[in-house]
Amino acid sequence: MDNFNAPGRNHLFVPGPVNIPDQIIRAMNRNNEDYRSPAIPALTKTLLEDVKKIFKTTTGTPFLIPTTGTGAWESGLTNTLSPGDKIVSFLIGQFSLLWIDQQQRLNFNVDVVESEWGQGAKLDVLESKIASDTAHTIKAICIVHNETATGVTNNLAKVRQILDSYRHPALFIVDGVSSICALDFRMDEWGVDVAITGSQKALSLPTGIGIVVAGPKAIEASKTAKSLRVFFDWKDYLKFYQLGTYWPYTPSIHLLYGLRAALDLVFEEGLENVIARHNRLGTATRLAVEAWGLKNCTQKEEWHSDTVTAVVVPSYIDSAEIVRRAWKRYNLSLGLGLNKVAGKVFRIGHLGYLNELQLLGCLAGVEMILQDVGYPVKLGSGVAAASAYFKNTIPLIPSRI
Amino acid sequence: MDNFNAPGRNHLFVPGPVNIPDQIIRAMNRNNEDYRSPAIPALTKTLLEDVKKIFKTTTGTPFLIPTTGTGAWESGLTNTLSPGDKIVSFLIGQFSLLWIDQQQRLNFNVDVVESEWGQGAKLDVLESKIASDTAHTIKAICIVHNETATGVTNNLAKVRQILDSYRHPALFIVDGVSSICALDFRMDEWGVDVAITGSQKALSLPTGIGIVVAGPKAIEASKTAKSLRVFFDWKDYLKFYQLGTYWPYTPSIHLLYGLRAALDLVFEEGLENVIARHNRLGTATRLAVEAWGLKNCTQKEEWHSDTVTAVVVPSYIDSAEIVRRAWKRYNLSLGLGLNKVAGKVFRIGHLGYLNELQLLGCLAGVEMILQDVGYPVKLGSGVAAASAYFKNTIPLIPSRI
Amino acid sequence: MDNFNAPGRNHLFVPGPVNIPDQIIRAMNRNNEDYRSPAIPALTKTLLEDVKKIFKTTTGTPFLIPTTGTGAWESGLTNTLSPGDKIVSFLIGQFSLLWIDQQQRLNFNVDVVESEWGQGAKLDVLESKIASDTAHTIKAICIVHNETATGVTNNLAKVRQILDSYRHPALFIVDGVSSICALDFRMDEWGVDVAITGSQKALSLPTGIGIVVAGPKAIEASKTAKSLRVFFDWKDYLKFYQLGTYWPYTPSIHLLYGLRAALDLVFEEGLENVIARHNRLGTATRLAVEAWGLKNCTQKEEWHSDTVTAVVVPSYIDSAEIVRRAWKRYNLSLGLGLNKVAGKVFRIGHLGYLNELQLLGCLAGVEMILQDVGYPVKLGSGVAAASAYFKNTIPLIPSRI
Amino acid sequence: MDNFNAPGRNHLFVPGPVNIPDQIIRAMNRNNEDYRSPAIPALTKTLLEDVKKIFKTTTGTPFLIPTTGTGAWESGLTNTLSPGDKIVSFLIGQFSLLWIDQQQRLNFNVDVVESEWGQGAKLDVLESKIASDTAHTIKAICIVHNETATGVTNNLAKVRQILDSYRHPALFIVDGVSSICALDFRMDEWGVDVAITGSQKALSLPTGIGIVVAGPKAIEASKTAKSLRVFFDWKDYLKFYQLGTYWPYTPSIHLLYGLRAALDLVFEEGLENVIARHNRLGTATRLAVEAWGLKNCTQKEEWHSDTVTAVVVPSYIDSAEIVRRAWKRYNLSLGLGLNKVAGKVFRIGHLGYLNELQLLGCLAGVEMILQDVGYPVKLGSGVAAASAYFKNTIPLIPSRI
Repeated sequence: MDNFNAPGRNHLFVPGPVNIPDQIIRAMNRNNEDYRSPAIPALTKTLLEDVKKIFKTTTGTPFLIPTTGTGAWESGLTNTLSPGDKIVSFLIGQFSLLWIDQQQRLNFNVDVVESEWGQGAKLDVLESKIASDTAHTIKAICIVHNETATGVTNNLAKVRQILDSYRHPALFIVDGVSSICALDFRMDEWGVDVAITGSQKALSLPTGIGIVVAGPKAIEASKTAKSLRVFFDWKDYLKFYQLGTYWPYTPSIHLLYGLRAALDLVFEEGLENVIARHNRLGTATRLAVEAWGLKNCTQKEEWHSDTVTAVVVPSYIDSAEIVRRAWKRYNLSLGLGLNKVAGKVFRIGHLGYLNELQLLGCLAGVEMILQDVGYPVKLGSGVAAASAYFKNTIPLIPSRI
Repeated sequence: MDNFNAPGRNHLFVPGPVNIPDQIIRAMNRNNEDYRSPAIPALTKTLLEDVKKIFKTTTGTPFLIPTTGTGAWESGLTNTLSPGDKIVSFLIGQFSLLWIDQQQRLNFNVDVVESEWGQGAKLDVLESKIASDTAHTIKAICIVHNETATGVTNNLAKVRQILDSYRHPALFIVDGVSSICALDFRMDEWGVDVAITGSQKALSLPTGIGIVVAGPKAIEASKTAKSLRVFFDWKDYLKFYQLGTYWPYTPSIHLLYGLRAALDLVFEEGLENVIARHNRLGTATRLAVEAWGLKNCTQKEEWHSDTVTAVVVPSYIDSAEIVRRAWKRYNLSLGLGLNKVAGKVFRIGHLGYLNELQLLGCLAGVEMILQDVGYPVKLGSGVAAASAYFKNTIPLIPSRI
Repeated sequence: MDNFNAPGRNHLFVPGPVNIPDQIIRAMNRNNEDYRSPAIPALTKTLLEDVKKIFKTTTGTPFLIPTTGTGAWESGLTNTLSPGDKIVSFLIGQFSLLWIDQQQRLNFNVDVVESEWGQGAKLDVLESKIASDTAHTIKAICIVHNETATGVTNNLAKVRQILDSYRHPALFIVDGVSSICALDFRMDEWGVDVAITGSQKALSLPTGIGIVVAGPKAIEASKTAKSLRVFFDWKDYLKFYQLGTYWPYTPSIHLLYGLRAALDLVFEEGLENVIARHNRLGTATRLAVEAWGLKNCTQKEEWHSDTVTAVVVPSYIDSAEIVRRAWKRYNLSLGLGLNKVAGKVFRIGHLGYLNELQLLGCLAGVEMILQDVGYPVKLGSGVAAASAYFKNTIPLIPSRI
Repeated sequence: MDNFNAPGRNHLFVPGPVNIPDQIIRAMNRNNEDYRSPAIPALTKTLLEDVKKIFKTTTGTPFLIPTTGTGAWESGLTNTLSPGDKIVSFLIGQFSLLWIDQQQRLNFNVDVVESEWGQGAKLDVLESKIASDTAHTIKAICIVHNETATGVTNNLAKVRQILDSYRHPALFIVDGVSSICALDFRMDEWGVDVAITGSQKALSLPTGIGIVVAGPKAIEASKTAKSLRVFFDWKDYLKFYQLGTYWPYTPSIHLLYGLRAALDLVFEEGLENVIARHNRLGTATRLAVEAWGLKNCTQKEEWHSDTVTAVVVPSYIDSAEIVRRAWKRYNLSLGLGLNKVAGKVFRIGHLGYLNELQLLGCLAGVEMILQDVGYPVKLGSGVAAASAYFKNTIPLIPSRI
């Protein structure tokens, strides 16, 4: 196998998989265990309880499925919907596109509401559809909370408000893959019926757990949903939850211990502080982009994402070259522009267990790369803008005061 | 969370997940990486090439799916078969039962050939079915190579011989979860069309990669198979194989590096030596069971499994009590009897990167437990029988001669 | 570099360095830290407090010196004695021999009291020397608590009793390298003035911390002791203890976190339970040796060691061949016979975070090796004898009841 | 124990112990081993061969002593000198001061040549002393290659030239603790007789190996040197080198495997590239300091250190407050000013397996802290200066081209 070693630490700023804290790496540094001994159910029980807290739900039922985000999507859809069901889905970037592709391949009748990439979901269009759907033919609204390809965060509270205004019973299904545990997400308050995330995003674990939380309405829907599912069937989990053994098939012992460590870190820092930190990192990144004279792919402030920033490069530059150069010269991993925005944007992921000086190192790197590829940025300008903001907002570390 | 610590090392003798070698634990002790950098495709390429070697295939196409064995089953079936397809499937224990349950829920027309638990698949019944199926209505034969619940190994060469004798085109689909990389398995020679294993078995990794290898006929079948699949669809993988980026969705970086280390260990030891070692461990275990005056759940020598031994206990003993006591007093993890053999058998898993003295420690423990629960075993008897065999068969460690 | 890989786990039964528990391996799996930040002094403070507990002292002052046991010896001697000082020292095996060699090279006037190897220190000789030393020319008694080469444990309570009987003020300096935290050791009760151990023995860490605890009389002696010392000088430590920064030079961050985990494991199990477990392992080993028809190098029961057993082989066998074969064929690491007993004994170390089934695996291995080298042992005999004892003495694991 | 956790990665920029590369952390993530098996001598042999390469010596004899830099100093001195020997030693900062303190406590007759802190060793004074010492009463010249407290690098080639000019036979003893494997060091070419470093510095390991390399003249001197030594005596090592077992007492298995990984990383990158990288990091740091309008403690360019920069703060600022604030608010570890420069300088360590973006993150942090403590730095100014330099000097990563 080739060896791609480079001196020093890799600066990992793709929007997932993200940096794993040492505490989690340590927790996963272990042998396998018998998952049928009392130890693993006891551990699982705490995980199921605690994972609800990062979704801000007390009524949801969590499933820790050994899969990726894509599998979690499939689990969320097939357990609650039947082939032919009409669903409204918003296409605003590559990941919503892939989800819609899945929805179509699963034989749902997908009413795609498309936005220009860089804009949020067209909630006014949703409103008119809901308003006119007095027969309640729409069975579900599928929406990404945060589109990872463009750095766009949608307004989920508004979706709930629209559904409530018209007393529409459609299921509210949310991809929170690059939002939950980093952005403000309120499953119960917003009446989200199915919410999904992946272990390798804000939770800062390796890939391998697709986390799906089903609200009471979703659990109810799963009893009659006709979509075919076996591996992804919640029924098998619910049966083992009843038995108190929890697992219909072998889980990853490592990821369970890792998740325990991840949740402990979140609670130790405080979920609200985690969210505030992400806002701080996101704001600083946007200020740097502005200082560089570049455009944020996200077209309006209301959609700004605190977990990933897609930066638009001038037309004479290939953004893929920026990503290549970052890796080849600076040991920096940035996100590519995908599909419609390939070559046009590069992405800075700023989610996970990350701090301000890590981000400033990344921003300093981006400045050099921009010069490398011919964009006349002033070195230090983005760092200065970000630092000026950080300087007024970083709190003292509570454990060190 | 409760703490179940106990002095010394846990003796892990369930038939999966199995002990992880230190070399693999080290290889997985790392941060995440950008899976779109050149490093991960380069690594993946070597894995796809090398994983074929442990299946003994040159014509197969491997898929390293972020899932468990259950998901790998589903991938193998849905990519090659259509709803309503008639398949012959053998019920010989709990894991074949679960697979059949999946087959039925996936809407195949399953012709279940049942054996008494402890016996192998009824290949004579298969022969008569194949002989009479001149219209080729049978689309696939589904069989577990090794039934983990009863310690029964089926004769796959014989299945191929039957199919060939009658020039029957049915797909030959094999669950090799507790066999591949431990038992003699020959995908190409035996004309297996789909073979499946999981990372947490003989490969000695954590759970999380479902390995599916598809032969040319299976790949061909996947082009017309009508079973619904998205997450498990080979098509997405094949598309990314073409692109050279390999991954339709985020893999576990850790398991990829772990798999690299696992394969390196296998090749370093030599696959045939790995298989011989498992035969040595299996034979010794059976000799110990015999010395204890107990019965092997496996009813004939031809079905003896070299990866797991299910031991039948006298009717006045609850085998679950043996497993509980092993864990509570001796820090030893044994396998429970499942379903029909619950309470009647306990299981000793002897697969993975395991050596003889580890097994002898386990056998010594089982002897004490048998006395604890009232079975009049002679202490040292099983260990003596196993040792006498080992003494004549253990080779010198090649790297230390 | 050569590669000495072998399938499965290495069975490490040398009397040090010993097996490291996974909990400690995890604790040490980390980056360096600034040892001048508040974190390391805070950690050190807990270590200094807690390490006293395993020495059973409240009045002692511990020093965690970045060195080995040999360095710890030197620290204990040079801080309390002056060149030319008369000391009584007991030669009972290779490690006491090495210590005496050090004492002589440090220019003390060493009155060596020699025993046959396999016997304990001649305390009757000590008594007569003390009785006749009314002028108090003897400045110190140096004695190993447990001679690792022969598996002999000396009676320290008796030493104190002799000194007290004659109101003799000699310092009582103890090498507890292979005893402390495994055997019953009572620094305050026995009036030990300097006690020494190493991290790689019962504490189950890597080599690298020489732990020296100085009682009040030793601290007092250090103020006037004229032996030259710089690196090993307690004065530098005491100065930094006063400052609250603790370290006169850079400690190993890893070993500090490892020691924290090691102490936590001891306290969780309970020090008395740790000692009882070692007694169980030692007794079982001796029963196995007896069952094999072999002699324990330790000549009387009163000297039996619960941390290491030296087994005498028949004269027609070279014990070094047993050790070589253990490693080459069984992945088992046994201790060599050293110096006077080279070729005549091999050693089984049974100290550290070890359990009964691990030991039984080792004993089963030894039985095969004994046959390999031509000794007519009955396979299973030693395991049976050890198991019979274990069966009646192993407690349930408290955390799993 | 208190918990000092903080979000994200600790930015470790003290001049030792330094960041440990993941490759080394992985290599050390293991159980203990029997150091008397063939594996450890085989490993040790490669280490002894390869460690000479980073000292640029073919004639030297290396000792890998389980100790710290302080112990390595003592080993270097006591093996080559006798009490009362006259030595010339240069006091230029806290670490040379500590070494001189050791020299005096070891009873050498130390002729201290003091410089103002921030200046290099007064080699003109050395020259006059050597010139006038026709009787060769000076037995050794002791000099730190790099004074870690002030960031001053001495000109060792010049020392050799002076000795040679006057054909003076004094031993040339060098503390290379914060230089070797980071700065240009040429043991053979410069005729260094004893050179010393520690594992936790440029080699990027945990503390625990004091590396001493003795040239032929030093080995010769050790045969007659009368300083008392036991633990630090080379003689014991040389005896075991002859035997091929290498270790007079238990080494740290972990550090041996770690050192293997460390050397592999150095050779993979290329020692000259490692040195060039340190020069790049040092130059960039100095440019940042200049851009901030602050003074480098190092008074002349010829003494500039590429491993550590001591930054002088204005008199109205307490540099200790900068270090405290770095840790409390930014999770950044900087070095304190020590002794004479306490409160006056803070130190940025830039040695070890470190890259440019890591340093830029640190520099960005320092800028914010400087503002925090009232120094009117322009945010981004130092980063810009360093980046401008990096932009023109960072090579492509060879493995990724």
